[in-house]
Amino acid sequence: MRVLVTGASGFIGGHVVAPLLACGAEVHAVSRSDAVPEGTHGHVVDLMDSSAVAAVLRAVRPTHLLHLAWCTTPGRYWTAAENFDWVAASLWLYRRFADLGGMRAVVAGTCAEYDWTGPVLDEASTPCRPASLYGYAKHQVHCLLEQAEAAGGPPVAWGRVFFLYGPGERPGRLISDVVLALLRGVPVETTAGTQRRDFLHVADVAGAFAALCDDSVRGAVNIGSGEPRPLRDLVTRLADLVGRPDLLRLGSRLDRPGEPAQLTATVSRLRKEIGFAPRFDIDAGLADTVAWWRSRLTGAKVAG
Amino acid sequence: MRVLVTGASGFIGGHVVAPLLACGAEVHAVSRSDAVPEGTHGHVVDLMDSSAVAAVLRAVRPTHLLHLAWCTTPGRYWTAAENFDWVAASLWLYRRFADLGGMRAVVAGTCAEYDWTGPVLDEASTPCRPASLYGYAKHQVHCLLEQAEAAGGPPVAWGRVFFLYGPGERPGRLISDVVLALLRGVPVETTAGTQRRDFLHVADVAGAFAALCDDSVRGAVNIGSGEPRPLRDLVTRLADLVGRPDLLRLGSRLDRPGEPAQLTATVSRLRKEIGFAPRFDIDAGLADTVAWWRSRLTGAKVAG
Repeated sequence: MRVLVTGASGFIGGHVVAPLLACGAEVHAVSRSDAVPEGTHGHVVDLMDSSAVAAVLRAVRPTHLLHLAWCTTPGRYWTAAENFDWVAASLWLYRRFADLGGMRAVVAGTCAEYDWTGPVLDEASTPCRPASLYGYAKHQVHCLLEQAEAAGGPPVAWGRVFFLYGPGERPGRLISDVVLALLRGVPVETTAGTQRRDFLHVADVAGAFAALCDDSVRGAVNIGSGEPRPLRDLVTRLADLVGRPDLLRLGSRLDRPGEPAQLTATVSRLRKEIGFAPRFDIDAGLADTVAWWRSRLTGAKVAG
Repeated sequence: MRVLVTGASGFIGGHVVAPLLACGAEVHAVSRSDAVPEGTHGHVVDLMDSSAVAAVLRAVRPTHLLHLAWCTTPGRYWTAAENFDWVAASLWLYRRFADLGGMRAVVAGTCAEYDWTGPVLDEASTPCRPASLYGYAKHQVHCLLEQAEAAGGPPVAWGRVFFLYGPGERPGRLISDVVLALLRGVPVETTAGTQRRDFLHVADVAGAFAALCDDSVRGAVNIGSGEPRPLRDLVTRLADLVGRPDLLRLGSRLDRPGEPAQLTATVSRLRKEIGFAPRFDIDAGLADTVAWWRSRLTGAKVAG
């Protein structure tokens, strides 16, 4: 397969090239920067430029489209009006891919599409009732692509990403911020952390997307671990790995109102239908993350 | 107001400049052809070219956006995958208009967004349950723009167009085809024509859109006559106006299965909230249409 990957310089994108190459794919990486991931053909394209998108698709003629790009600025992306631009850009990208005989599209969705009142979120039985603009916009793309597929477009697999962490995560997100603070010797103030979330190492999230490309499954597929973890346990584990449990201030912040107590993916589609098995359990994953941040901070004074 | 009009060379667009100018508007007409409607500033822009769209908005800095453009090829637009491109293009257009401080957007929707089981279609009480791809795509734009407005974008009025006819209609549609056949002396084969539809002269449809621009109403507004007419009556009236009732073959075709018996707009928002009154009743409107086609066909051999 010849795969065009968008968001190739992003968090998941930075981990997806290796498993795609391992599948034997010819990988064309689209990003706004000219840093070309090793082993790929790089294309500098602004996905908001409709002509440039049409041109790169004509030049590459991919058999597969892996669309990961979206606005993801921490703290902003949940509510940014820019989400609407990504709806437009995603639809346009799929349509031009379809025009050129593209065979299969795999697109990144989110667990934020679901109604978050239930503890377990299932592709078939949990209704989609997004509470955020981000979740709404992603879900609209899913609905539009489903209809476009029904109208004769190439099959779409829609990977609903749960909570992820690992090397390459930007500061401003939970795990990256906690690790950075711990390594810098800064006290970490958190809620009690009783809420349980489904975390998966980014390399496994990326591996799951590669597996979705190399499969024929259609529709929504949860990309998670299936194992709910209290945030408290993750943070405590990180503090132990860094050797600074003294810096933890669990319960020094109040829970945000309306935070669901538990969000877990059902992973039977991912595990059984597609046969994907993650490489990292949570302990190995967190250790890998701490090691990566340590190596990044060499030269800076780090604790632990 | 400085209005940017898309679809200015289309059926409604061809009639919308006069009422906009009558409101005192500065009119910027965007179309793919370089035929500039009289009294307007013309801009040749492909609405599928995202950079060109952003550029024309930066150049014009409209206070108002009147977005009429869509794929409308008779016989094709109900099912064309191109509808998805218009979803993307419409969203992009609104977002760039919003970025530049645009104050008010008026966009063309359709009665095909509604559930068609009820005889009377009301903005507030009739659910939207589009049965066609065209109706679905238009409705998605409506939903997305409502959310974009809620996220801080400029107010949107959404004009749901019912059935229209009049000067400038393309062949391939009911009224234009019947008039053309009658004027050419060709027999007109139709269904029994018992189904009742809500028809409004295109100049009044366009007048209603201009009135929506010059108002502050938000959300969906039906653009119709409020008066259901059996198709049979319209066709018979046309045959009388042309003087060729002998050419009518009412009932020579079977009704399409699932055709709703009646589709009528409630027009209280249009008439009372906005205060719009149509210029043409159905008899005057059909006479105007026949006169227009006659003048177009001079030189060709016409009957009547």
